[in-house]
Amino acid sequence: MRAFRKSCLKHFLSCLVLASVTFASTAEPVKQEPIMVFGHLNPDTDSIVGALAAANLLNATGRSAQAMAQGPANPETAFVLKRFGLVQPPLVGAVAGKRVAIVDFTDAPQGPADIQEAKLVFVADHHKLGGLKTAEPLEVQIQPVGSVNTILYELHRAQNAPISKGLAGGMLCAILSDTVMYKSVTTTPRDRDAGAALAKLAGVKDPKSLGLEMFKIKSAIEGVPARSLVIRDYKDFTMSGSRVGVGQLELVDLALVANQKADFLAAMGEIKKEKGLHSIFLMLTDIMRESTEMLVVTEDPAVVQKAFKAELKGSMLWLPGVMSRKKQVVPNLETAFKP
Amino acid sequence: MRAFRKSCLKHFLSCLVLASVTFASTAEPVKQEPIMVFGHLNPDTDSIVGALAAANLLNATGRSAQAMAQGPANPETAFVLKRFGLVQPPLVGAVAGKRVAIVDFTDAPQGPADIQEAKLVFVADHHKLGGLKTAEPLEVQIQPVGSVNTILYELHRAQNAPISKGLAGGMLCAILSDTVMYKSVTTTPRDRDAGAALAKLAGVKDPKSLGLEMFKIKSAIEGVPARSLVIRDYKDFTMSGSRVGVGQLELVDLALVANQKADFLAAMGEIKKEKGLHSIFLMLTDIMRESTEMLVVTEDPAVVQKAFKAELKGSMLWLPGVMSRKKQVVPNLETAFKP
Repeated sequence: MRAFRKSCLKHFLSCLVLASVTFASTAEPVKQEPIMVFGHLNPDTDSIVGALAAANLLNATGRSAQAMAQGPANPETAFVLKRFGLVQPPLVGAVAGKRVAIVDFTDAPQGPADIQEAKLVFVADHHKLGGLKTAEPLEVQIQPVGSVNTILYELHRAQNAPISKGLAGGMLCAILSDTVMYKSVTTTPRDRDAGAALAKLAGVKDPKSLGLEMFKIKSAIEGVPARSLVIRDYKDFTMSGSRVGVGQLELVDLALVANQKADFLAAMGEIKKEKGLHSIFLMLTDIMRESTEMLVVTEDPAVVQKAFKAELKGSMLWLPGVMSRKKQVVPNLETAFKP
Repeated sequence: MRAFRKSCLKHFLSCLVLASVTFASTAEPVKQEPIMVFGHLNPDTDSIVGALAAANLLNATGRSAQAMAQGPANPETAFVLKRFGLVQPPLVGAVAGKRVAIVDFTDAPQGPADIQEAKLVFVADHHKLGGLKTAEPLEVQIQPVGSVNTILYELHRAQNAPISKGLAGGMLCAILSDTVMYKSVTTTPRDRDAGAALAKLAGVKDPKSLGLEMFKIKSAIEGVPARSLVIRDYKDFTMSGSRVGVGQLELVDLALVANQKADFLAAMGEIKKEKGLHSIFLMLTDIMRESTEMLVVTEDPAVVQKAFKAELKGSMLWLPGVMSRKKQVVPNLETAFKP
């Protein structure tokens, strides 16, 4: 027995030499459809440009990919795409059974309805982990930085993947937008480094004035219906079984919406009913005062007050120092909703 | 109004200059407990050495961390630790409310019971996404490679973090173990590159004979009770609501266990009952023939036959070419369990 095992081991050793040849190239099967690459529902600049950047990275590293989006570009993103000669990615349809790459989210409610039936092969994100499951190993790159485009820039650099001038400009704008021009608490030195490198690649000499131009467009709300503003930058979450929606408007001055709050609340009530939400929030974020006035329609005011340790005045909550949905609003709500 | 907005924008611009100073250092609060770093239940060499490597990386990059484990070292791991002068990490207790880093898993059932109450700050893994959620952004590095230590080696290199001679030896062994000496279908060129670099750092001249020594110890089962062998390298999964357990023994010859199958099946039946499992599997993997004889105790033989497109003979299933639980067994079961 011992002799047999010894001879087996010898044979094993010689097999290993063969194996290192035989198994060296477990390449992807050819003739597959391109990987569908997209960001979250109600896409913002970070999501739409992030899909373009991730598709660029996948293509540069030998994995055929197509950028897509879960909705049309908002006014800010449309400005960015036009400014840098980028094309609005086509809309995502059914993804069941398809290979997909997602950027800027990992919460199933922020993906297509059949996202859990897709074959997820790549994730880049800068949010909390949202509970997605896969059946097979994949690549996931999540970093606590201000913009998913910072991560995508770093991945390009690590892989020596080229970034075109136009794409670099889009990625720069995505970083400026998501970090509120490096002003949000989510900003890290890596965002600034990536932004500086991308500005150079894009030939943008004055990123600050580019950012201000972008935020002016983001703040332009004249003539836009209240409901459209509530859902312009809006995300659904599931918190301990309760469905919760949080929208955000980043404004240079809250006076811009002083007369619209009743309209916002009415639109929020409608959306809450349609989606069967427990609570819906609209963050009116004053980027000058770096604070947020939060509008609230909820089944349970106590849970909201618990979340923010602040008292609701009618349907409003004043949150000084709060600018980030991701870091300063969603975590508090997640905790308050825990049984 | 327009003039006011314009002056606001000017003020905003000057604020940005200040902000870039004010928000530059959102450093961690001091005096926190070290981050608890650990791998999955029933730890193998990849999990235990991976925790040591991840703690080394976190400490080298300014985040105080302590390697831990969810169980004692198995005989293979004990050999590796001793050989390279590494210390068995202490056992993990309660993690609720604590900062934790996990390696080599993202399935909640493979973590401590209170893992969803912990504050997860770092994940490194090479498996499928297991559905963990967090309340806040974090760092996640998942790559479809053969060993989590390959990822951890690459992260050390990217951050210029030093790896001691002993740790390098342990990481090399973890890669050799998880890839079955680069023979498993999970092996990638990156595993071989990391292995070669680590062998150099560790001063290991003949990695193959080191690997064989390790696999001899892994195959040594004389005198070990059947139940201990079933759970030696065993993982629980939740598949579409059903709890499923999969153990694996990698053997140089199936003849070693020819007379023990009835004992294995009896032990599996016990474990299935205790844990309320739908199905329990034991992969008897012949690393010479690169195939697996699978023992099965299940509520529903049809789902098993559907998963592997093979017929059960009594409680056994012969799976030619199958060596990887992660890539060739779990995905098939996940699909078969879908309603």
